[in-house]
Amino acid sequence: MRKIINDPRNFVEETMEGITLAYGGKVALLNGDPRVLVRATPKEEGKVAVVTGGGSGHLPVFLGYVGEGMLDGCAVGNVFASPSAQKMTDMILGCDRGAGVLCLYGNYGGDSLNFGMARENADFEDVKTAEVRFADDVASAPKGEEARRRGVAGVVFAFKVAGAAAEQGKSLEEVTTVAEKALANIRTMGVALSPCIIPEVGKPSFSIEEDEIEIGMGIHGEPGIEVRKMMTADEIAEVILGKILEDMPLSEGDEVSVLVNGLGGTPMEELLIVYRRVHQILAQKGVKIHMPHIGEYATSMEMAGLSVSLFRLDAEMKALLESPAGTPFYTNANK
Amino acid sequence: MRKIINDPRNFVEETMEGITLAYGGKVALLNGDPRVLVRATPKEEGKVAVVTGGGSGHLPVFLGYVGEGMLDGCAVGNVFASPSAQKMTDMILGCDRGAGVLCLYGNYGGDSLNFGMARENADFEDVKTAEVRFADDVASAPKGEEARRRGVAGVVFAFKVAGAAAEQGKSLEEVTTVAEKALANIRTMGVALSPCIIPEVGKPSFSIEEDEIEIGMGIHGEPGIEVRKMMTADEIAEVILGKILEDMPLSEGDEVSVLVNGLGGTPMEELLIVYRRVHQILAQKGVKIHMPHIGEYATSMEMAGLSVSLFRLDAEMKALLESPAGTPFYTNANK
Repeated sequence: MRKIINDPRNFVEETMEGITLAYGGKVALLNGDPRVLVRATPKEEGKVAVVTGGGSGHLPVFLGYVGEGMLDGCAVGNVFASPSAQKMTDMILGCDRGAGVLCLYGNYGGDSLNFGMARENADFEDVKTAEVRFADDVASAPKGEEARRRGVAGVVFAFKVAGAAAEQGKSLEEVTTVAEKALANIRTMGVALSPCIIPEVGKPSFSIEEDEIEIGMGIHGEPGIEVRKMMTADEIAEVILGKILEDMPLSEGDEVSVLVNGLGGTPMEELLIVYRRVHQILAQKGVKIHMPHIGEYATSMEMAGLSVSLFRLDAEMKALLESPAGTPFYTNANK
Repeated sequence: MRKIINDPRNFVEETMEGITLAYGGKVALLNGDPRVLVRATPKEEGKVAVVTGGGSGHLPVFLGYVGEGMLDGCAVGNVFASPSAQKMTDMILGCDRGAGVLCLYGNYGGDSLNFGMARENADFEDVKTAEVRFADDVASAPKGEEARRRGVAGVVFAFKVAGAAAEQGKSLEEVTTVAEKALANIRTMGVALSPCIIPEVGKPSFSIEEDEIEIGMGIHGEPGIEVRKMMTADEIAEVILGKILEDMPLSEGDEVSVLVNGLGGTPMEELLIVYRRVHQILAQKGVKIHMPHIGEYATSMEMAGLSVSLFRLDAEMKALLESPAGTPFYTNANK
């Protein structure tokens, strides 16, 4: 097994220890709990908190976005498994500053169930919550059934804009509306070339042939739309953009941010080659690109593959995207 | 072949196109040459330029560090091959602002030969140059033969401090001294778990058994010190630090920056688990860590593995490391 780990059962705790040792000025464990990461310096009283939660194995998602201008807290489960409702409850109560807490997370069964229970617990403690289940993966359900879609890399944009709105002192309703507007304007699609290995399992949970590519595969290896013979980078960009633009048509003069996200085992050079074609296609349609994001933002450990997300911007979203953020894994110093 | 590319012969040009399309506000091709990247806005007249060059396939090294506060230019060759002396000459002449040019690059045969010729050409044009061949890899030659060592990930720290010194208006001699001081205080060692594939070759150029790890392997697959049965993350951290500290002893009260660098196919979680152990060992020795860098800084495309670099800091190096930089792939907003 080509993994640099110790006892697989300690994978999550040791990752958390690494993060807090490295970035202790920015993040901390909530009351020493190795499953809940919060800002080192909590937000002022009266501001809305934005929190998330999900399985491990996707760094920088989710933990890496806790910090100024983005998330107030993140509860983590085992690799590809939801955190418990109890950890989510602790996080919500620990992050509330009297103005309520937005739970912004990927649309998966376990996470939804547990966040539902945690929100009930919070309600019992008179802490107001709201939620937005992020569902940006166009490959996971057809148009008209958006609520069944999975949440993938596009959620990073949502963390950014909702976090910025909360930082500005907006109300829980307003921050929730920002996250919903982001969801309505973000679409993602990915391709995978190889599986990944869950440390406790020790072998790949599925396989992809050496000369094949799976279009629309999920970040936990959920089946995609189809398996094809390997394609060129340009063809991949064209297939992905075709599907996204069918779902969210863009016209001349529209402005988007683009995220070309590596799943873990795909080199930066290849992400740039795909970005190149995405840029060409959008430029040809007269669509302007603002603040492209290229790199590993939401991974599946060492999976080879990538996803492309488009975020359609208006003046409000653009300003929120541009506003300062400084988390261990995201800064927008490159805007 | 699990690569997302078009015609392998266009790999470098298309990568360069991606970079300039994405980061056009920061970087540009020198006179449209797809093999020389320079800042979009040149430095003021009278300031020293710092340039580099090397093979492709190591992003963010080298191209990704062209920008404010770091490099003025970078000439790129094919994957794992030196750029030509002509491209280096063009770069040196194009980046000179009348105060001379420091060529700061990894200690490899082709690069040294070509930079030597390029510097002669520059001399002929009355452009003053200096050079520092970066040689931080302790695994590649024993103590006492430092000049034979290869340059690996630690060069990123050197780009940072030399770039900062140049930005402050220091002379060519002073900037060169800063780079030499960085080299004297930086040590790196790496391990590899899997090979990588050069696009034009289409298959791995060497192999590592599934249950083995190569200690001290170079970033082009150069043989390391030994091949061992797979070790734990903690053992890997201990072996690497042991070798580095034997070469550059540290005492209580010393301060270092640490770079845990992924070679391409190793997840961030694993880098953090290794960082955790490195931090523990240094803390135990009373060595303080300043501005840890954890992520992919110098890769070998999709190779699995990592390297650890230590950079021993004094007040001068610390201030230079902290000073602002904003390149497509490096910001120090996280200091």
